[in-house]
Amino acid sequence: MLKKPLVVDYQKALEIINQGVVPIKWKDDTLWLINQLALPAKLEWIPCKTVEETARAIKDMIVRGAPAIGVTAAYGMAIAAKQRTFKQFEDYHQWILEAKSLLASTRPTAVNLFWALEEMYQSFLRLKEVNIEEIFSLLLEKAQNIQRDDQLRCFAIGQNAISFFGQNPKILTICNAGALATGGFGTALGVVRALQLNDYFPQVYALETRPYLQGARLTAWELNEDHIPVTLVTDGMAGTLLAQNKIDAIITGADRIAKNGDTANKIGTYQLAVLAYYHKIPFYVAAPLSTIDFSIESGKSIVIEERPKREMTVFGNITITPESVNVYNPAFDITPAKLITSIITERGSVSPQRLQDL
Amino acid sequence: MLKKPLVVDYQKALEIINQGVVPIKWKDDTLWLINQLALPAKLEWIPCKTVEETARAIKDMIVRGAPAIGVTAAYGMAIAAKQRTFKQFEDYHQWILEAKSLLASTRPTAVNLFWALEEMYQSFLRLKEVNIEEIFSLLLEKAQNIQRDDQLRCFAIGQNAISFFGQNPKILTICNAGALATGGFGTALGVVRALQLNDYFPQVYALETRPYLQGARLTAWELNEDHIPVTLVTDGMAGTLLAQNKIDAIITGADRIAKNGDTANKIGTYQLAVLAYYHKIPFYVAAPLSTIDFSIESGKSIVIEERPKREMTVFGNITITPESVNVYNPAFDITPAKLITSIITERGSVSPQRLQDL
Repeated sequence: MLKKPLVVDYQKALEIINQGVVPIKWKDDTLWLINQLALPAKLEWIPCKTVEETARAIKDMIVRGAPAIGVTAAYGMAIAAKQRTFKQFEDYHQWILEAKSLLASTRPTAVNLFWALEEMYQSFLRLKEVNIEEIFSLLLEKAQNIQRDDQLRCFAIGQNAISFFGQNPKILTICNAGALATGGFGTALGVVRALQLNDYFPQVYALETRPYLQGARLTAWELNEDHIPVTLVTDGMAGTLLAQNKIDAIITGADRIAKNGDTANKIGTYQLAVLAYYHKIPFYVAAPLSTIDFSIESGKSIVIEERPKREMTVFGNITITPESVNVYNPAFDITPAKLITSIITERGSVSPQRLQDL
Repeated sequence: MLKKPLVVDYQKALEIINQGVVPIKWKDDTLWLINQLALPAKLEWIPCKTVEETARAIKDMIVRGAPAIGVTAAYGMAIAAKQRTFKQFEDYHQWILEAKSLLASTRPTAVNLFWALEEMYQSFLRLKEVNIEEIFSLLLEKAQNIQRDDQLRCFAIGQNAISFFGQNPKILTICNAGALATGGFGTALGVVRALQLNDYFPQVYALETRPYLQGARLTAWELNEDHIPVTLVTDGMAGTLLAQNKIDAIITGADRIAKNGDTANKIGTYQLAVLAYYHKIPFYVAAPLSTIDFSIESGKSIVIEERPKREMTVFGNITITPESVNVYNPAFDITPAKLITSIITERGSVSPQRLQDL
């Protein structure tokens, strides 16, 4: 029943990826970002021509998702190198440091942001001996490489997941771990796309994912664009779907994975893992190796960020609860390793207890 | 540690109940209903002076919750008897049957509606020998009795639940099984109110309950009115609350309970019961005996109503997902008896397997 995944070379993989949704594009000397705040009402591209515009786009959540933020920040560094030019490398260096600091201040918790900025900065330092006029084009190339690498990692995650599935798999997912959250193709939705490309004909149930509705707004939109069947449900319907045997597997992305396999992800993920365990359904986490933080022993060390009350109590311009009501609004939760069937990375999949084997 | 419940006579109980939120009131020859569609933005009372207005209020969901619908329909029958008067009992009879039929057509699935209409109709038939001019006032009295009985049943449910709790209990609930859903006082929230009246100082976590947000709009508002501490959470946060030991018990209402104890309630209830089981936390159903349908062997015979797509995809005037996306929108789910710790009724509490002992 299990097929071998479609074997493709890098060039072919990139071609496939770029036929789908890619939220970050470089065109006409400008960085273009899909405005994720405007979806699904309209597909709007926001241009960024300065490092300040790029930083604002990240801060305002026009672009979101840790890998996508990293890629955007990398382009931001290249834009900085174009925006102001200098005769002396040391003057250039000063400005590049300023740009790096501005971009780093946008989203203090996204690990990929700092990684991408450091990669770009180290590349800049290595350009000390080249013709100063070539620095921008070389940094742009580096940013494009970072995006391409991210896309190919997602593609590899998808290929590595295929052996877990049979024909017509019905998959439940939460939030948006899709093309929009990455350089393209996606992690959890990358698995869905790989299944589609390999003729498994997956069907997706998307949890709407309150309070931000990334499932309804982004995942449903993305899969719709790719003509992959998607059914929207509220977060309270997951248990019923499992009880009705409507789901073969749950797949989520990850914000951070501790050394022992405990996984931080969007609030609501933990209870999905408990429901999967109770109903004896596999629970997969799809994430690139860069999501694993070997400096953290377990999920206990991951601080749970609490988001503003307003995100839960106001919808558009409608206030849905009395002003004086208390709100608890954690942005993510911790799924213990024991509830995770497998963590699927670009280098293969392992049980969460054996992460270090990778 | 366990206290004996506050013992009060009926008169005192009614006094306590009527100091709180009562969504249905008779005043100045008019039925007044809290407009539950306008909460929490404004507390608006809708007057009903005709049976047609009363029927419309039920149909448009100005009043909701099975017991509250029953009480409203009972008043609707009394209003009919006032709206048109007749010299001959048989002419009166004809009109009362028309009124009954109109009210019955509003919400075809609410069991309490048909029960209340039949009660009122039988009362009318028994009035054949009285002075025809007294019929309205006697039917009004009957409707008021139905409301009072419903309130006292809720009060008794609350008293019967107290022995399950210690001091400062932290309670998780879904949807609105409160005063607004009943003649007053509420079922699940009646338990919370009883705990408050008996100085247990409960704290409530209210699931917002998508897609209709009865938790955010109604439960949070009600408890706020009663100065009972309430914290609003999204439906995806239940598991995390349990994992963090923030909850001592889950209490829900019920739409219908089968002979074997399987319970239909708001979508999202089933997964709460699974989460309670996994975290070894008690899961209580609070409901009057009239909710038990002994004609149904098990939950398998309960048809799950599916609601319109629009309820999930549109919020106010904002469309939150692409138009073409599929939606699955069941209004309720079935919690199997084995996941229910106890069903608490006005006549005491039993394990769901022993319902027939009541």
